[in-house]
Amino acid sequence: GIKKHILVIPGDGIGQEVTSWGKAVLVKIGEQYGHEFTFDEALMGHAGIEATGSPLPDETLEKAKASDAILFGAIGHIKYDNDPSAKVRPEQGLLKIRKELGLYANLRPIMLFDELLDASSLKPEVLRGTDILFFRELTGDVYFGEKKRSEDGNSASDLMIYHRYEVERIARKAFEAARARSKRLCSVDKANVLEASRLWREVVQELAPQYPDVETEHMFIDNAAMQLVKNPKKFDVVLTANLFGDILTDEASQIAGSMGMLASASVGDGTGFFEPIHGSAHDIAGQDKANPLASILSVALMLEISFGLKDEAKKITDAIDATLKAGYRTGDIADANTDKAKILGTTAMGQKVLEYLN
Amino acid sequence: GIKKHILVIPGDGIGQEVTSWGKAVLVKIGEQYGHEFTFDEALMGHAGIEATGSPLPDETLEKAKASDAILFGAIGHIKYDNDPSAKVRPEQGLLKIRKELGLYANLRPIMLFDELLDASSLKPEVLRGTDILFFRELTGDVYFGEKKRSEDGNSASDLMIYHRYEVERIARKAFEAARARSKRLCSVDKANVLEASRLWREVVQELAPQYPDVETEHMFIDNAAMQLVKNPKKFDVVLTANLFGDILTDEASQIAGSMGMLASASVGDGTGFFEPIHGSAHDIAGQDKANPLASILSVALMLEISFGLKDEAKKITDAIDATLKAGYRTGDIADANTDKAKILGTTAMGQKVLEYLN
Ligand SMILES: CC(C)[C@H](C(=O)O)[C@@H](O)C(=O)O
Ligand SMILES: CC(C)[C@H](C(=O)O)[C@@H](O)C(=O)O
Repeated sequence: GIKKHILVIPGDGIGQEVTSWGKAVLVKIGEQYGHEFTFDEALMGHAGIEATGSPLPDETLEKAKASDAILFGAIGHIKYDNDPSAKVRPEQGLLKIRKELGLYANLRPIMLFDELLDASSLKPEVLRGTDILFFRELTGDVYFGEKKRSEDGNSASDLMIYHRYEVERIARKAFEAARARSKRLCSVDKANVLEASRLWREVVQELAPQYPDVETEHMFIDNAAMQLVKNPKKFDVVLTANLFGDILTDEASQIAGSMGMLASASVGDGTGFFEPIHGSAHDIAGQDKANPLASILSVALMLEISFGLKDEAKKITDAIDATLKAGYRTGDIADANTDKAKILGTTAMGQKVLEYLN
Repeated sequence: GIKKHILVIPGDGIGQEVTSWGKAVLVKIGEQYGHEFTFDEALMGHAGIEATGSPLPDETLEKAKASDAILFGAIGHIKYDNDPSAKVRPEQGLLKIRKELGLYANLRPIMLFDELLDASSLKPEVLRGTDILFFRELTGDVYFGEKKRSEDGNSASDLMIYHRYEVERIARKAFEAARARSKRLCSVDKANVLEASRLWREVVQELAPQYPDVETEHMFIDNAAMQLVKNPKKFDVVLTANLFGDILTDEASQIAGSMGMLASASVGDGTGFFEPIHGSAHDIAGQDKANPLASILSVALMLEISFGLKDEAKKITDAIDATLKAGYRTGDIADANTDKAKILGTTAMGQKVLEYLN
């Protein structure tokens, strides 16, 4: 067995509820396979601001750097959403930790559980067979470019900027993933309008000959947002910038039936960071309603990507599959055909997955 | 009857084929209602570059300013898409004319023809009843902010910038439209990350009390991209920035079954500009395959918005409705249930609509 130290950062809203089940699954897997997982916990986001004044307290960053992997919950608070003038904001914590840990590659696999084909607003025949792996660049773009507000407050700007090395390192990861999958890469940009996108396209075009076995395609973001709904099967590995990736992957969550089903892995120079793609969902926080499966799937990604434990990861996705096959659903993935008695809250759903892990 | 001078700018790719049917419908409506429509034609995009070296020849701009409305086709050429280093590009023509004519408000109605409910990749029950009107800001944002390339070519940037007055004027149009419709406005931004979005949200929040009868909601772009697939019915009037609007409206085209069904109106200070939201589709250009309905619907928008001719506009949408009810389809909106004999090319489809206009 291996020995790993995992930092759990619940963050805001439903973060605490869902990460507790991710952690429970890790504990169980550790017992089953003889791995020694130790845990610590730290604050971020609104929780960090409340306790320390900072959305990313120094202590959290230190613990993050010292850990072998991070399990994160969610971030954001309605209070700040409605106050555009707030200078300190929960999301800054997430952006800062991504930057500080050098997590430039955000992997977002769109996995389809057969049982959830009907939970989507898309037709089952459109969905069946879809399997997409997004590579979203995570530490550049308009997210991190200089932000300005004019003195009179009447104009505001953000710099959308990319450097060659930033595009190259994420593109290489995507090409390599494509090579190991179905050998198709689609790079998404807006090169017909944006200079940053033209650099992006240039770099991807330059790298392509080094991956002659990969079929490379370029698509404009507007077209990609459309094609993703029209025919998601046409995509395999999708490579894109920070902002476009943010939008496309949330959109793609509907392929999997719900945001509550999607996990993501942020990797790069430092400690790997694993989180659901869903937000803090304050409207249902503390009500035992949140879907814990994305957090549990984040743990599967952690085991596979950070620790190289493929069997353990598969054990988890199999357990989720079995849970769904047995008819259990949280509210977000229930549909008209769901047996009402099998619509579970966060706790009951987490427990079911633990049972099926046996 | 009224007297109006209309400039037709076919542009690139399928532009020529589709605008010719938009024009034919205008001629017919003119005859039927005793309006005197006169026409001129001008170049833009790749066609402009080929003929004059400029994607927006001076003559085109002069004619545009002197006309009462513009019917535009499509823009773009694959040659430039694959050459990120080209300095002169077709799309510059479209961006420049938008800016020169002060067309800051792009209205994109997502209309659902009952007959096409099954043509979408979304489930009919998810679609039924959807009726969205997008207000996309069209002359600001990262589209028009300063573009830079470093001397060594290794970094590239675009400035995402908004000024208060730019947000205010489009927001007012959206609030007014909401007032005349179902009194719900959803403003989409990324205020949790972007300063330009925070200004956007601030301005919309400040205006909201002046429209107390309108229920105003703010949504992050990633969430909106997701909700649009999950539950499009929840949207009525959607207000958003240039880039986000580009992405969301293309995505929303799948609600209407195809890009080939959506028209848009760009209005503001100068001559109104009417165009399909689809692109130049070079892969099918000149093959009599393009769907002319978006261009014909653009004409309906022109009649209603620029000339105040509601009955005439309705006559056109009714004729399209009748054509679809009779089972006729172009390839993009045909599905497994379509009678093969009723799958028409551009010309035959245009003629059908003219017949049903009788
Ligand atoms: C919370 C927010 C800053 C974040 C982002 O935009 O990156 C989130 O939407 C995500 O996708 O992880
Ligand atoms: C062709 C392109 C410049 C244009 C845009 O991005 O505005 C198009 O996609 C549109 O939506 O009208």
